[in-house]
Amino acid sequence: MNNSGSPQETVPPVEGVAGGGTAYGWDDGSLQDQSLLRGVIDPSRVPSFELVHVWCMPSTANVGPQETPRPLEPVSLLAGRNERESIQIAIRPKVSWSGSSNAGVVQIQCTDLCSTSGDRLVIGQSVTLRRVVPILGVPDALVPIDMPVSQINLLPGETTAIWVSIDVPSTQPPGQYDGEFIVTATKTDAECAAQFHDKSEKYQVYRELRNCLDVIEQIDGKPVEEVVERAKSATTTLRRVLLSPSFSDFFSENGPLDMMDEDANLCIRVKLSLTVWDFVLPTTPSLPAVIGISDTVIEDRFGVEHGTAEWYDALELHFKWLLQYKISPYFCKWGNSMRVLTYTSPWPADHPKSDEFFSDPRLAAYAVPYSPVVPCGDLAKDYLQKEVEILRSKGHWKKAYFYLWDEPLNMQQYDAIRRQASDIHAYAPDARVLTTYYSGPSDAPLAPNNFEAFLKVPGFLRPHTQIYCTSEWVIGNREDLVKDIIAEIKPENNEEWWTYVCMGPSDPHPNWHLGMRGTQHRAVMWRVWKEGGTGFLYWGANCYEKATVASAEIKFRRGLPPGDGVLFYPGEVFSSSREPVASLRLERLLSGLQDIEYLKLYSSRYGRDEGLAILEKTGMYLGPERYTMDHNPIDMMRGEIFRTCRP
Amino acid sequence: MNNSGSPQETVPPVEGVAGGGTAYGWDDGSLQDQSLLRGVIDPSRVPSFELVHVWCMPSTANVGPQETPRPLEPVSLLAGRNERESIQIAIRPKVSWSGSSNAGVVQIQCTDLCSTSGDRLVIGQSVTLRRVVPILGVPDALVPIDMPVSQINLLPGETTAIWVSIDVPSTQPPGQYDGEFIVTATKTDAECAAQFHDKSEKYQVYRELRNCLDVIEQIDGKPVEEVVERAKSATTTLRRVLLSPSFSDFFSENGPLDMMDEDANLCIRVKLSLTVWDFVLPTTPSLPAVIGISDTVIEDRFGVEHGTAEWYDALELHFKWLLQYKISPYFCKWGNSMRVLTYTSPWPADHPKSDEFFSDPRLAAYAVPYSPVVPCGDLAKDYLQKEVEILRSKGHWKKAYFYLWDEPLNMQQYDAIRRQASDIHAYAPDARVLTTYYSGPSDAPLAPNNFEAFLKVPGFLRPHTQIYCTSEWVIGNREDLVKDIIAEIKPENNEEWWTYVCMGPSDPHPNWHLGMRGTQHRAVMWRVWKEGGTGFLYWGANCYEKATVASAEIKFRRGLPPGDGVLFYPGEVFSSSREPVASLRLERLLSGLQDIEYLKLYSSRYGRDEGLAILEKTGMYLGPERYTMDHNPIDMMRGEIFRTCRP
Repeated sequence: MNNSGSPQETVPPVEGVAGGGTAYGWDDGSLQDQSLLRGVIDPSRVPSFELVHVWCMPSTANVGPQETPRPLEPVSLLAGRNERESIQIAIRPKVSWSGSSNAGVVQIQCTDLCSTSGDRLVIGQSVTLRRVVPILGVPDALVPIDMPVSQINLLPGETTAIWVSIDVPSTQPPGQYDGEFIVTATKTDAECAAQFHDKSEKYQVYRELRNCLDVIEQIDGKPVEEVVERAKSATTTLRRVLLSPSFSDFFSENGPLDMMDEDANLCIRVKLSLTVWDFVLPTTPSLPAVIGISDTVIEDRFGVEHGTAEWYDALELHFKWLLQYKISPYFCKWGNSMRVLTYTSPWPADHPKSDEFFSDPRLAAYAVPYSPVVPCGDLAKDYLQKEVEILRSKGHWKKAYFYLWDEPLNMQQYDAIRRQASDIHAYAPDARVLTTYYSGPSDAPLAPNNFEAFLKVPGFLRPHTQIYCTSEWVIGNREDLVKDIIAEIKPENNEEWWTYVCMGPSDPHPNWHLGMRGTQHRAVMWRVWKEGGTGFLYWGANCYEKATVASAEIKFRRGLPPGDGVLFYPGEVFSSSREPVASLRLERLLSGLQDIEYLKLYSSRYGRDEGLAILEKTGMYLGPERYTMDHNPIDMMRGEIFRTCRP
Repeated sequence: MNNSGSPQETVPPVEGVAGGGTAYGWDDGSLQDQSLLRGVIDPSRVPSFELVHVWCMPSTANVGPQETPRPLEPVSLLAGRNERESIQIAIRPKVSWSGSSNAGVVQIQCTDLCSTSGDRLVIGQSVTLRRVVPILGVPDALVPIDMPVSQINLLPGETTAIWVSIDVPSTQPPGQYDGEFIVTATKTDAECAAQFHDKSEKYQVYRELRNCLDVIEQIDGKPVEEVVERAKSATTTLRRVLLSPSFSDFFSENGPLDMMDEDANLCIRVKLSLTVWDFVLPTTPSLPAVIGISDTVIEDRFGVEHGTAEWYDALELHFKWLLQYKISPYFCKWGNSMRVLTYTSPWPADHPKSDEFFSDPRLAAYAVPYSPVVPCGDLAKDYLQKEVEILRSKGHWKKAYFYLWDEPLNMQQYDAIRRQASDIHAYAPDARVLTTYYSGPSDAPLAPNNFEAFLKVPGFLRPHTQIYCTSEWVIGNREDLVKDIIAEIKPENNEEWWTYVCMGPSDPHPNWHLGMRGTQHRAVMWRVWKEGGTGFLYWGANCYEKATVASAEIKFRRGLPPGDGVLFYPGEVFSSSREPVASLRLERLLSGLQDIEYLKLYSSRYGRDEGLAILEKTGMYLGPERYTMDHNPIDMMRGEIFRTCRP
């Protein structure tokens, strides 16, 4: 016999064992007065805590349908000004109280957060609610819900999470802000009898009322007996309609009861407390995080033709929506052999919209296209010269960069970059050309081994590239290689070292793939800060498979890890809204960028070594394979910086 | 660097690559006229195949939310009479057409299956529809839906499956029966405007109508001018109400349109074809499969006190519902040290209900309790004697067995069985005592090694046990050990060898744990048949964690593999129905029992060796680690038996 394990240890635990009587080993002490839970359960008569579990989870938790309940504790958050902080409220039915295939419906409500001095963070403006929706079974999409009150369907045996975000305006007075998130088990709309039973019932009412109208409509000049007769007939009809089951819920004559007061004793209240401190996170992020948006995907999915008014609108909507995430979007179209056309503004440089886009203080960097985005009369070369001359004269020129080729792999591709960069530098010697790479040219090895060849790329490309943007994948878990990379960069020539992630690195290293841990998503930015790069690039935020219908199912591209190249979803997939739907991973990118501002503040006071030490001391981030899986160290880091940096 | 894999093979596939232009590599050729899919999609104007994928899956497939679409092909099934055959229809939205968080709603409908000679298998009776609901994320619960027409919510990016079962009555004329399963994308009820927008709107209508009534109610004796005035006022009010948005869908004056004719061209039709052949599966299953039902769980969850009228009702409901699965239920209460009180009828032997239960031809075996189930005046010993004397005189006595102890582990427990069995045999020498075991007594080894000791149990227990019921776990993948077990059994003394599964064996062996493959579930019975056991026992079909509310969330018991001890769910968890909800695993148990009838028919014609050969030839089942993962061999086996055994 090749079975392992002692059979005696593996017999089923059954009722009689280890608990006596019917103790199955599970204590359901929370169910007290069960008479209200027998038969049909009326949620308006039962405290909601008998019907649902409610508990809080940090923003780095991936709260899926199988998440198991925890004790409910009050939420206490810390945020600077111009910062977003988020928390999740998880809800799971204990019992089913709906007659339908749902376990039941809960009403969720969030109040404003108020300070004792009367300042407010207003629900719907500074406080927002979104439902966490699984993608491929993994919690990822954050679909907006109605505020301040919304109804949510709960399924038997499944946990639902609500993502609560608080955006603290730059001008918000510091202090403690308190509010409540309220969960009330309720009947469904249909059960609330706000509805007719079916369309035929409603049609019946309509017909009776029309007959009634016909009867009393034309009475002018009619003999009084007939007028009285008609009025009596109408009276009878009206009485019948009003006493019909359609209106039975109003028979009390007092109109519909306002249930809110009654509900007050039954609901579950989650205390939300936020300490706003007077650190104002910079409007322009300290670390430019440039993120690609495929214009092709927008054109196909939303059916907008390149260069039309709708196309400009669609791009502008995306640009503006993404700015809230403290990233610097660039639109991108891929050509042959990974040549890319990248542009942050679809308009020419002399268009007022370009100035509006580039001057936005939330934008840290913008891509200038090498050739016209929308065909125009000019030759490409004239176009480039004209654009550059206009932009050089602007205050925002320091944000400009040219991104010409994605990951050149051979001499021909490297030469193409050199040629284009030469053109650019001929018109603007101070222009920044960005090149992403993870190796030298494969057909002309720069060194005997791959990593040495990779290190020699700056020397090989100089002066045709200023921003050397390397894959984190190359570094692997060898953080010590970072110093070798940096040694090749010449900051005195305005050269910069940036990094990027895409397919790689993979688990357990930080990246934004679906299915990674929340701290792993957030650690992408911790890694950047620790390694000392001065910028970051991500290839795509909307790179779904091709679709030509706005609400078409989201499919990740074949051959890519799920979630790679996708940081938000089209709103149309989840509701009638056109507003994009953020992923959890996009929120964690934002949180990571905010963490960098905290670390930068701390380092500006105590030096970079202390900034690195706090990462280590709290256990938040020690290296690409050694970072926290738990949320606590993040709060410890932030709390320590609050404690040591507040005035 | 410790990264593996060539970077060149792993660069992201992007728009320009390998397809030219915007070919992302995904051909969505099915979306033809896309003008109807721009903006708000009206499902009543778009062919449903543009909005949803519909395809068929065999009953052994576990169709979860992530299941990917396949081509739609017609369904062709084979069934004997008194057989249930099932198929799954999977539905997944291609786009979202609902404004809500659903992707959309589909109407599903199934017709009767009709033969050319006019015979029918009627929907709602012989043809039933159930929705496949995931438990712990794994498709398992089969929740009944309305028939013949039902509406189903689809979620973005998720596949929903409908389980279609056809129960062929014993008297059904053989022949080919054809029908259709029809899927139509539709608007939600709310969108169909059968509803008021909300309760306040309905209240507004109610108030206006009440005012109108007040105005015209009391006109008797009023001056004619006032009567006319009041009638005019009422007219104005009525007109306003009738023209309000509440009734806007009736403005056409023609009443609500019947959309059914229009829908006909838009829906997706799945052809269902069933060949009924003239093999009538025996009413009494050839293999007794006795399945435990915890009475404690029923008492706790449904709040029925042991011995009350409600308690008898609850047990009867379970007994009768389970008989459709061709299993022989026994109720069970666990005592100390795995002593069990088992009984198929809660009533005493002389109660008419006991006769009704035991005589049911679908019941293959029944458990007789050793002591009173519900306390009565008699001493336990008198009780046993009285019961046995009554039952021995009945025709159904041959089905009776006594199951006294679950898996005795030491001499004390073995002795207890001997004592009880002696009592029983004193009153009925021909009584069958069943003992489950996987080892000899641990404190008095019967042999130097465990397996030898296990083999010696029959010799050790004889004559106190007739049904030696051993764990499949003991055999492991060593099918050759079966002959050693059988060699110890004396059929000439009416001894039988039965088997059981519980926690073990585990994957990849056949068992009923959640998350195992469908063929693995079904193979439990294939294994029994191949090994030659003459009966089967399963410890529990409703052994959830303790709960005291009928609709409380289902929790599997800690320490058990998910699904172990659970073959059905309380209906209250999923709807307002009290009818239990079957698991996929219970359906596959039934299918396995039906497979045994096919194999038995074939063996009765061609001998057991040929019966074993057909398992091997089709690749359906070769051993506990070598059985099909695919459905085809099952259809091949059944088809071959149909071909070779029909008249």
